[in-house]
Amino acid sequence: MPKTSNKYLSLVTAAVLSVGAVASSTSFATAFTDGDKAVEYRQQALQLIRENFAFMASMVRGDRDYDGELFEERAQALYHLSYVPWDGFINAGYQHSGNGDALPAVWENWDDFKERSEQLQADAKALAEAAASHDMGDIRPLFMSAARNCQQCHENYRAD
Amino acid sequence: MPKTSNKYLSLVTAAVLSVGAVASSTSFATAFTDGDKAVEYRQQALQLIRENFAFMASMVRGDRDYDGELFEERAQALYHLSYVPWDGFINAGYQHSGNGDALPAVWENWDDFKERSEQLQADAKALAEAAASHDMGDIRPLFMSAARNCQQCHENYRAD
Repeated sequence: MPKTSNKYLSLVTAAVLSVGAVASSTSFATAFTDGDKAVEYRQQALQLIRENFAFMASMVRGDRDYDGELFEERAQALYHLSYVPWDGFINAGYQHSGNGDALPAVWENWDDFKERSEQLQADAKALAEAAASHDMGDIRPLFMSAARNCQQCHENYRAD
Repeated sequence: MPKTSNKYLSLVTAAVLSVGAVASSTSFATAFTDGDKAVEYRQQALQLIRENFAFMASMVRGDRDYDGELFEERAQALYHLSYVPWDGFINAGYQHSGNGDALPAVWENWDDFKERSEQLQADAKALAEAAASHDMGDIRPLFMSAARNCQQCHENYRAD
């Protein structure tokens, strides 16, 4: 990696400004000031969560051979992703449900919804810690607990 | 929230098995054993990173009024997301570049690519810590450092 000179930093600054300029002419500049973009953001984040969850579910129920390293990767990803979608429900995404499955109940029961999102973070953290043991006996009950929270939240707050 | 009974847990178990059954018939069950899904996963994760990065860039360069709370939210999201895309470059995503901009150089220089991904994690962590101060004087150099790493990595490893 090259040494950082003032000249180099200027070039980078220009590049970032350029990135910004490009962003200004695309949808990215309006992220979170545009409700549709907030919805897309939260949907993408929840889809990444679902990817990891489905992968782990296939190992928990034995459809896929259990691999402790792979399971641990997915649990770590779930832990980090558990912090991501919620920003898309506030600011521009607040009470914006266009093209999404989020029910008005999300915002009518905001404190409960927020509590459940924090519960997912706690569940995912505990699951990631258990996953490091590579012991399915430790992992299974924590996975089920996280699954239960997902299911209850979807029943109350998701249209499908 | 209802008390957890054995009966309730059985229902949830059934629901999770059902989720798994559904997943088996959809693309999600093949996440990370299907290269195309691995590419989609990493692209979505990097797009979420870009969303947050573009939002912060607009505040760093003054196109959007600086709001310390909003900036901190984005920096926290970037920190968590900095751990996510890389799983899509390994396993089924290893040397799979179909429909993606990832150059073969990613896998030809895997140690360097991995080091840069870890540098992004370190940069994002430092940025999130600085963002908590709400002081743009502290934030700006760390943002620029993260931007420099993004740019260098894209120059070497991304087609566009």
